[in-house]
Amino acid sequence: MPYSVAVAGASGYAGGEALRLLSAHPELEVRTATAHSNAGQRLIDVHPHLRSLAALDLVETSAATLAGHDVVVLALPHGASGALAAELPDDVLVLDLGADHRLTNEADWNRFYGSEWHGSWAYGLPELLHSGSGRQRDALAGARRIAVPGCNVTAVTLGLAPGIRAGVIEPGDLTAALAVGPSGAGRSLTTELLASELLGSAAPYAVGGVHRHIPEILQNLAVAGAESPTISFTPVLVPMSRGILATVTARLVPGTSAAAVRDAWVDAYATEHFVHVLPEGRFPRTADVLGANTAMMGVAVDADAGRAVVIVAIDNLVKGTAGAAIQSLNIALGLDETLGLPFDGLAP
Amino acid sequence: MPYSVAVAGASGYAGGEALRLLSAHPELEVRTATAHSNAGQRLIDVHPHLRSLAALDLVETSAATLAGHDVVVLALPHGASGALAAELPDDVLVLDLGADHRLTNEADWNRFYGSEWHGSWAYGLPELLHSGSGRQRDALAGARRIAVPGCNVTAVTLGLAPGIRAGVIEPGDLTAALAVGPSGAGRSLTTELLASELLGSAAPYAVGGVHRHIPEILQNLAVAGAESPTISFTPVLVPMSRGILATVTARLVPGTSAAAVRDAWVDAYATEHFVHVLPEGRFPRTADVLGANTAMMGVAVDADAGRAVVIVAIDNLVKGTAGAAIQSLNIALGLDETLGLPFDGLAP
Amino acid sequence: MPYSVAVAGASGYAGGEALRLLSAHPELEVRTATAHSNAGQRLIDVHPHLRSLAALDLVETSAATLAGHDVVVLALPHGASGALAAELPDDVLVLDLGADHRLTNEADWNRFYGSEWHGSWAYGLPELLHSGSGRQRDALAGARRIAVPGCNVTAVTLGLAPGIRAGVIEPGDLTAALAVGPSGAGRSLTTELLASELLGSAAPYAVGGVHRHIPEILQNLAVAGAESPTISFTPVLVPMSRGILATVTARLVPGTSAAAVRDAWVDAYATEHFVHVLPEGRFPRTADVLGANTAMMGVAVDADAGRAVVIVAIDNLVKGTAGAAIQSLNIALGLDETLGLPFDGLAP
Amino acid sequence: MPYSVAVAGASGYAGGEALRLLSAHPELEVRTATAHSNAGQRLIDVHPHLRSLAALDLVETSAATLAGHDVVVLALPHGASGALAAELPDDVLVLDLGADHRLTNEADWNRFYGSEWHGSWAYGLPELLHSGSGRQRDALAGARRIAVPGCNVTAVTLGLAPGIRAGVIEPGDLTAALAVGPSGAGRSLTTELLASELLGSAAPYAVGGVHRHIPEILQNLAVAGAESPTISFTPVLVPMSRGILATVTARLVPGTSAAAVRDAWVDAYATEHFVHVLPEGRFPRTADVLGANTAMMGVAVDADAGRAVVIVAIDNLVKGTAGAAIQSLNIALGLDETLGLPFDGLAP
Repeated sequence: MPYSVAVAGASGYAGGEALRLLSAHPELEVRTATAHSNAGQRLIDVHPHLRSLAALDLVETSAATLAGHDVVVLALPHGASGALAAELPDDVLVLDLGADHRLTNEADWNRFYGSEWHGSWAYGLPELLHSGSGRQRDALAGARRIAVPGCNVTAVTLGLAPGIRAGVIEPGDLTAALAVGPSGAGRSLTTELLASELLGSAAPYAVGGVHRHIPEILQNLAVAGAESPTISFTPVLVPMSRGILATVTARLVPGTSAAAVRDAWVDAYATEHFVHVLPEGRFPRTADVLGANTAMMGVAVDADAGRAVVIVAIDNLVKGTAGAAIQSLNIALGLDETLGLPFDGLAP
Repeated sequence: MPYSVAVAGASGYAGGEALRLLSAHPELEVRTATAHSNAGQRLIDVHPHLRSLAALDLVETSAATLAGHDVVVLALPHGASGALAAELPDDVLVLDLGADHRLTNEADWNRFYGSEWHGSWAYGLPELLHSGSGRQRDALAGARRIAVPGCNVTAVTLGLAPGIRAGVIEPGDLTAALAVGPSGAGRSLTTELLASELLGSAAPYAVGGVHRHIPEILQNLAVAGAESPTISFTPVLVPMSRGILATVTARLVPGTSAAAVRDAWVDAYATEHFVHVLPEGRFPRTADVLGANTAMMGVAVDADAGRAVVIVAIDNLVKGTAGAAIQSLNIALGLDETLGLPFDGLAP
Repeated sequence: MPYSVAVAGASGYAGGEALRLLSAHPELEVRTATAHSNAGQRLIDVHPHLRSLAALDLVETSAATLAGHDVVVLALPHGASGALAAELPDDVLVLDLGADHRLTNEADWNRFYGSEWHGSWAYGLPELLHSGSGRQRDALAGARRIAVPGCNVTAVTLGLAPGIRAGVIEPGDLTAALAVGPSGAGRSLTTELLASELLGSAAPYAVGGVHRHIPEILQNLAVAGAESPTISFTPVLVPMSRGILATVTARLVPGTSAAAVRDAWVDAYATEHFVHVLPEGRFPRTADVLGANTAMMGVAVDADAGRAVVIVAIDNLVKGTAGAAIQSLNIALGLDETLGLPFDGLAP
Repeated sequence: MPYSVAVAGASGYAGGEALRLLSAHPELEVRTATAHSNAGQRLIDVHPHLRSLAALDLVETSAATLAGHDVVVLALPHGASGALAAELPDDVLVLDLGADHRLTNEADWNRFYGSEWHGSWAYGLPELLHSGSGRQRDALAGARRIAVPGCNVTAVTLGLAPGIRAGVIEPGDLTAALAVGPSGAGRSLTTELLASELLGSAAPYAVGGVHRHIPEILQNLAVAGAESPTISFTPVLVPMSRGILATVTARLVPGTSAAAVRDAWVDAYATEHFVHVLPEGRFPRTADVLGANTAMMGVAVDADAGRAVVIVAIDNLVKGTAGAAIQSLNIALGLDETLGLPFDGLAP
């Protein structure tokens, strides 16, 4: 008998993508989809692409409507999931796609978010390398509260952790510049996200160290072994609905050979299903991972500049959000980690 | 009486944009447009948007067809302009939109281009700061051979030179990641430049220190006063036909205040017509400069990361190519530097 | 001494484009820009691309702030300009970019708009052919109240009127399908206009005869000589910020030769500056007219289907809105009709 | 034991999409992928998104390399599949994604294609209504030679056939205008398909009755019961990599009620898995069907214009090409028709 699932915040982009993937999962059954202003509508009127779930209606988000499911996925605005999650039974698997339970340091939460802090949950990035050995996957087995990482965080963390753990790049003075699609910002009505503003244009935001994903990246890199990491992080909105292409760079540890640098990444992900390191000289495009739970990357060594350059491509709504949730869910429930998750991108 | 102008390589994007701007210039008259495979066609069949020049036919590119003009603009593939330019009289103003005459160091040319080196010309970036004081503008007055900078080079150089000359950023370990439109790659038929490949995708290229624009950037920064500059430079194609959004970062010189950093940029460009530094906390989009000869930038200080972050937006075909040529032409001929050049972008 | 101009509703796309073009007009001086929710801000904070007008602040829209100018351009939501215009002196030239004064038939207004009707003004489409002979241009000389046409209306009207007046196509059973950029819908915050919704997608709207531009098209075709015209009209939003590509078709009048059909269009626009009929077998793209006041079109005869097919490209914000206003303004004030208006598109 | 499959022409877009879908099909195993100029490369170097098939190398296209498979999919340029198919055994299931075997009328082939005619195969559009009763599905059971329809043809045929068969629209004087992504034109290197040409622009092609898909549409409508159908057909390239949004219109048969018109479409597709008629007043976007084998449509009655308007959205590479092939394959092999085919689109 399949596990029953409810998705809260189903009318947004993250909630919609969770539903798309959940409905194709062989061991799960979506029973409930909740919303706030759209409650009462048919799900398919809000997400016309979700034909598989045409029978679902959106009900009001509350502890009552979410009760009685094996799995609850929270796709709510930041600050909204903490109180709601506290009302759900401990043995229900709850996955939070929002930021509320990601940060382990309350001071970071207060500085970058500022609403009430609700503590941290098991962090849903299975491939995250732990200092020395081990991976985050182990912390997810049997977990019942999982914080799904931020999409930009996933791209940057996966791109840097191998070099950090292997000691081939320096943890201070990292840089990351990301070309990102607007769907990561959600279905929110702001002028900056209008099609007329973004079509034919590239637009930076949160420039100069103020983006909320920065403390989460540094937290992950510390897990991978970085002492006092620092990162210059700049996202740029570009005219594609989905996708993140992260260009991350790090100073090479002096004396490291180019082969040793590449080996750090190749070795780190050799056994991973969803992280794919390309052959030398090749780099990914976001189209290569569109709709897939794949993080694809290429690693270069720029000896003149003294930096390693890693290009990481993910689909922000899949490996960056809803796919990561299902991957973690599979682990938490003891299922095959790859169940219900696409490997292949949709290109062109 | 207007100066007569010929454009060689008129069927490409750079040539087309040069023609668009030249035809609107009050002191110039386009008499001749040349091409190779398209010779014999009407210009408007190759560039249907150039209604102002509907009377022109494309003639074969040669020293003979280019002879007899006051100004010759060369918009030819790299390696093609050196020999042709040598056949033109010394008193003709020749502007090369290609790379052939940009690099002052033959070893750099050989490493990054590899064809025959033809020496360097006066460098067409009027706003380029010279170490100590002075600007490149002075070197252009009366010049008759001008090498127009590469488009990425213009964005990165303008973004870094003020901090270099003011001594508020360190010249080593610079980084630049650029979101760029494909028109900068020209009208060349390669699979990577097909619409199906780029629509909905972000695609890096020339990753890891191999892009031909790197030595030109370093050459400029040395002019601005940098000793042994190094830069990690990564361009990413994004789905917009035109535009460059450069994210450039540099380590802050220890002890420098945030105000001193911003002042370096504000002061450097306070008197410039075509470089516009936005107020603190604001950053440009490429749409803001579409079709304009404007470089717009925002400067941030990321104290946590210890880096200055400068975002620069230009239109690669205008301030990055054809507009820069006309601005330099105006200076060389003693005209008002702003003549015939748009300030305002075409947004949305 | 230049004419002084005020633009009401300056923070929207139509208002912004009017300002861009007005600021480049040699006989006009923009003195005032008004807004509602953005009043009090600097214009350049709302339209960062308008560097030429950096000195302007947005003031509140009212009869008082608009008083004392020679020309007032109203770029207000439908229904808002009628009352305001009534407060402006009769000798001020008022151009309404909205729909309020376009329709001559009150019943049409009531059916498609429904708010209070304010009567009709001189219709600002100079090239509109009048039945028999003559053009709308004559009605604009000396006018002081001008209703600027809808953008889709301009494309469809220009594409059909020549065949109507020449009697080579039938006025009943016309069809029009338009690929349109979202900027025509204005800077309004609706989910359908979000970048995430439109990027990578084509989305129809107002399907089945309910679009407000339909009665205006039929009104124009009646002016051109059509008896009881009918049209099936379908706009489709596509992922480009600007531009309209209209595919209009009409049944051929039996016995008409293909040459006679093409001649109708070629002859109608032979003397027009801003309407350009391409040679046989060629058709325009919207990029060809981006930023220009040009309507470019191609005419084909499909003998098998028994229909003429006309493809019309315009920039919805220029020839479709702000450029049309300035063209009409030039005529109304007795200036050269082409003053301050670009012919050439911005491609690629 | 799964059926073994070979794909010829694997390096193009149609071939790549066939491989993406085939690799996810539970009853099929892709054994061979062939190419011409790319033979010898790894498949994943040509299609980096196809991680599931990373083990495959591209071999030369020939009867020898295609031999020994249960199923052969031909994704070759028009004119190339006829001779090759003749060399394959009769009991192998051959699906031709190209045009070579679609047309039943040799004169049509000669007029629109002109190369050698190879006769017609079972036509792979299962939902095609036959005059009176029955559907094309019946002709596909057990078939071993299947001609997969053209992508534009599928959209237009599905949009018109219900009204034709039900007698509520007239078969003469049909119109179709399509917004199409460039991937339908294949991975061919032509200037018109460059990203710089298409980004930010809408571009018509094959205007005026010359498109090769026209006779195929008329052939289908005749199957559905149309006597002497005629259609004005205009495709417009728009800046999205995939997708077709077809606006098709037809004159209403006098005296038909709006309800009767809508019922014709609702009834025709009530039992179809992959054709979805939206509720009254709703119309599809291409994003709703991205990556899915779904044709989604909305039907409107424009009483003023006397026309039915049907909007059809498909993914040109899925329901328009590779998905249609697999759907037909499922029928031909006696499998569940929906096996391996996605219902849900990838939005946003």
